[in-house]
Parts: sequence; structure tokens; C-alpha cells
Amino acid sequence: MEFWYSDKHTKEVQLSMKIKHQIVSHESDFQQIDILETYEYGKVLVLDGELMITEKDEFIYHEMISHVSMAVHPHVENVLVIGGGDGGTVRELAKYKTIHHIDLVEVDEDLVNLCKKHFPTTALMMEDERVYIYHEEGLRFVRSRQEEYDLIIVDCADPFGPAEGLFTREFYGNCYKALRKDGILINQHESPFYSEHSQTVQKAHKHITAVFPLSTVYQCHIPSYPSGHWLFGFASKHYDPIRDLNAEKWNALEIPTHYYNTDLHKGSFYLPNYVKELLGTNE
Amino acid sequence: MEFWYSDKHTKEVQLSMKIKHQIVSHESDFQQIDILETYEYGKVLVLDGELMITEKDEFIYHEMISHVSMAVHPHVENVLVIGGGDGGTVRELAKYKTIHHIDLVEVDEDLVNLCKKHFPTTALMMEDERVYIYHEEGLRFVRSRQEEYDLIIVDCADPFGPAEGLFTREFYGNCYKALRKDGILINQHESPFYSEHSQTVQKAHKHITAVFPLSTVYQCHIPSYPSGHWLFGFASKHYDPIRDLNAEKWNALEIPTHYYNTDLHKGSFYLPNYVKELLGTNE
Repeated sequence: MEFWYSDKHTKEVQLSMKIKHQIVSHESDFQQIDILETYEYGKVLVLDGELMITEKDEFIYHEMISHVSMAVHPHVENVLVIGGGDGGTVRELAKYKTIHHIDLVEVDEDLVNLCKKHFPTTALMMEDERVYIYHEEGLRFVRSRQEEYDLIIVDCADPFGPAEGLFTREFYGNCYKALRKDGILINQHESPFYSEHSQTVQKAHKHITAVFPLSTVYQCHIPSYPSGHWLFGFASKHYDPIRDLNAEKWNALEIPTHYYNTDLHKGSFYLPNYVKELLGTNE
Repeated sequence: MEFWYSDKHTKEVQLSMKIKHQIVSHESDFQQIDILETYEYGKVLVLDGELMITEKDEFIYHEMISHVSMAVHPHVENVLVIGGGDGGTVRELAKYKTIHHIDLVEVDEDLVNLCKKHFPTTALMMEDERVYIYHEEGLRFVRSRQEEYDLIIVDCADPFGPAEGLFTREFYGNCYKALRKDGILINQHESPFYSEHSQTVQKAHKHITAVFPLSTVYQCHIPSYPSGHWLFGFASKHYDPIRDLNAEKWNALEIPTHYYNTDLHKGSFYLPNYVKELLGTNE
């Protein structure tokens, strides 16, 4: 039997992976959770039919959502991760001894437990004593916080489904309020290429730019995601991602990475013309 | 009827596009040529079953294979394009008034004629008076040339099939010989992500590095290509792609581009760690 899983990138484009077998099929209170063993990508996490992470390339997404801000902000101690139930972002953050406290707000407890069991190399730091997991809605959680965090990472792979309330101006306004006076917000921004996703990019960027004094976008290559061209929003009350990059200090930490480095850090902010036009930042 | 075309990225991964209808199915002396009308990507050119270009994203490939060297080398007059039968590289080169002469060596005449007919926005400069088209093998053509070209672009989408003799050390040695004393070679390098392709990347890079005093690699995002993460080799007798970038001069030319710009130029040479390891250039 040939057994393939297809992730719809648009109604008319899909990426398909040949499957060895299905490991998990579980309906949680929030979503349908599937875990598949593939030939090329290792284990793959699928939520409501959409590909979330793969063992083969999750390192790219998680390094790029974590290390860019950490190489810019000089003293991150207290971090909030919204979403991120697979644990990959927490794994990268836990590499910094200077981080004392990580709040992770993931509404779906079943998702966290299944990832701990089936993606041990991704979720391995979820039991770290600095990590506090809240099974609540991110939108509500952040509403009650004021000037608490140095860094907020919005790690929700999809603006629909359980994450629907995120990607709004109100939400980003609450993030601003929850950040300390020199805090940074990192937002996973979807892809600029297919028009279905690029509208999400535009909206998120517009809302963030309305709220934060400094708002820009960086990119990376994630082969298993639609178009492979992925964006993150970098929004900040104070620090500039290029001017305030402290490459020497970051390199001295000797944090092992397979994708991120401080040269690539700079390069990731140099966007193609069509992306700059989409964001309205073309000179 | 639902009608889909699938491009195999590896044996176990494929990208599929929904098709409106097939426009061309033609067996030339060299290969099977198919042209499909898709919903998302516009017209798509397929050679021996493999996706070559799409109307939607060919601009990225052709801008990145052309403008990087042109923004570095101060006086390109005479160019050799090996492959490039679709005409996209010639279209970009023809934007430079300083280029007097372009030799295009594409073995398959049927391919050129079909692209002229069905990809008019890609092939539109193939009739330009500066363009000389040779229906010969690139390997043989370049063997007989000495110190003629300022720039050679190897625009062959696949190291197998008709392009098999390229990607060898002998071929790159002949390119070196065919270049003037400050000439540049640009080589399409495949993707670093899937192991099937990354071996091609490694081999090509090794051969080029053995021949040229300066050899490096740059990257871009091409959504329709395997993994979306595409590499080009930049090899040179004299010019450094970062140090010798003349951004001011290039920007003064006001050449319209949708992907390339001179900031992105620099960023494209800052590679992820895993790619640097693959190339053996990790510090």
C-alpha cells in the first residue's frame, strides 16, 4: 500500500509526504491531532489536517523564532510564549542561562502531552524548572499582564482555529502592555507568497506597526511550510534588530544552532522587493 | 474531473498543482516537453516530468541568477548563457545597455521555440539583436572558447538528462578558460535540503572551488522548486560578491526587479549553518 499525507498550501497546491504509518489520531477538546511517521521528514505533527512541525526541519522554525531577539536584547530574563505546545521554542530559549522564567500558554493540554511523548527531541525542555505551562487562551492570558516580560513570542502556526483571536490589533496592544519598557515581540507571520497567506502577513504587520514604535519583518527557509518562504515579525519598544545585534556577545555564548548564525541574522531582514511591497515598506 | 501534476522532490515528497489543461506534449530529440496551465502558478514548463519554470515564480530564479554578478562586475559586455532555453535569463541580462553580446547555448531548438510561443513574457528578449542562439551542447561549445566572456551563467535546471556533462570539473575548468581575466561564473546549484540534491550541491561546489580562486554560494526562495531553498554558485577570478558590490551604481541603473535588491544581495550570501557545513565553509 502507498500511503501519502497531503498538506494543502492553497486550494490548488499541495505538498505530499509518503507515510510509513500513523502514530496518533486524537480528537482533543480543541482540535484533531494527528502524528504521522514519514519517510523523508521523520515524525510529522498535523493539527486539523494542517502540517505544524516535522522532525526534519522544525529546527529552522524554532531557531529563527527564538535566537534573533535573544541576540539583540541585552538582558532577557522573563519570557512569554503563546502557543508553542510542541516545546521547540522552549527548547531554544532554555539554552540561555540568563532566562529565569518562561511562561508558556498553550490552550490544548493534550497537544503538550502528545508532543512530550512523541517528539522527545523537540519537547525535552518542557519539564525544565524555569518553564510554567498554562492551559489557557493566549488572548485572555496576556490581557491581564502588565510590564512583566522582556520577550513575548507568538508561536501559533495558524491564524484560524484555536489561535483565531490572535493576529488582531487588540491582541498586539495587550502584548505591548505586557512587555517591559524595552521589550520585544516576535510573531510568526506566515508566508508572503500565496495570496491566501500574504493577506494574513499584511494584516498582522499592519496591526503590529500600529502598536509598536519599531516593527519589521525577517525571513527564513522552512521547506515543509507553504512556499518554503516564512516570515516573522520583529516588534520592539526600543531595540533595533540590526543596530542592536550584539554578534560578539551572542557568539561567545557558544549556543549550538544548525540554521541561525549572526551573519544570517542580518541577512534575514533584507527582504525581496515583492515582500517589501506587500508590507508597504518599499522605499 | 480533477487534474493534478506532481513534481517529485524526492522519492517520498512531491509538490502537486491543480491543472486547468495541458497545452503542449511534445517529444523533442532530447527530452519530453510538457506545458501545463495551472490554477496557482500560471503556465508551467515540465521537462522529462520535472518542473522547470512557472509563470508565477520564474522571476525569482532569473533575477537571482542574473543581477548578483551584474551588480559586482563593473563592465560586463560579453556574456555566455549555457542552457536557459526559456529565455528568462536573457530577459534579465538584456536590461543592461552595457551588455553588447549574449551567446546562448541551448541544445534543444524545440524547447526554445515552444517557450517563445507559450511563455512570451519570459522569452520576449530572445529575438534581441544582441542575442546569438546556438543549438549545441554547452560542454562542447565552451571547450573551444578562450578569454572571451566577462560572465558565464550556467542555467541548467538539472544535472541529469541533456545537462549531464555539466557539473563536472572539466566543464568548470573550460568555463574558467573561456572567461576573461576578471570574469565571473554563476552556476545554478540545486537545493541544500534534501540529500539527493545536496550531494549535487557539494559536488558542484567542490569542482568550482578547485578551479576558481574565489568561490562562494548564495541563496534565494523559489517556492515551486524542491524545498523552496535554492542555491547559486558565485565563482570569480577577481571580484568578491560583497566587497565589490557597487550598490549605488546598480541602483542608479533603475532596473525594475520584483525580488532582487542590493540589500538582499548581501543577505543572500549569509547562509544557514547546515548549508555552510554541507559546503565545508563553516568557520
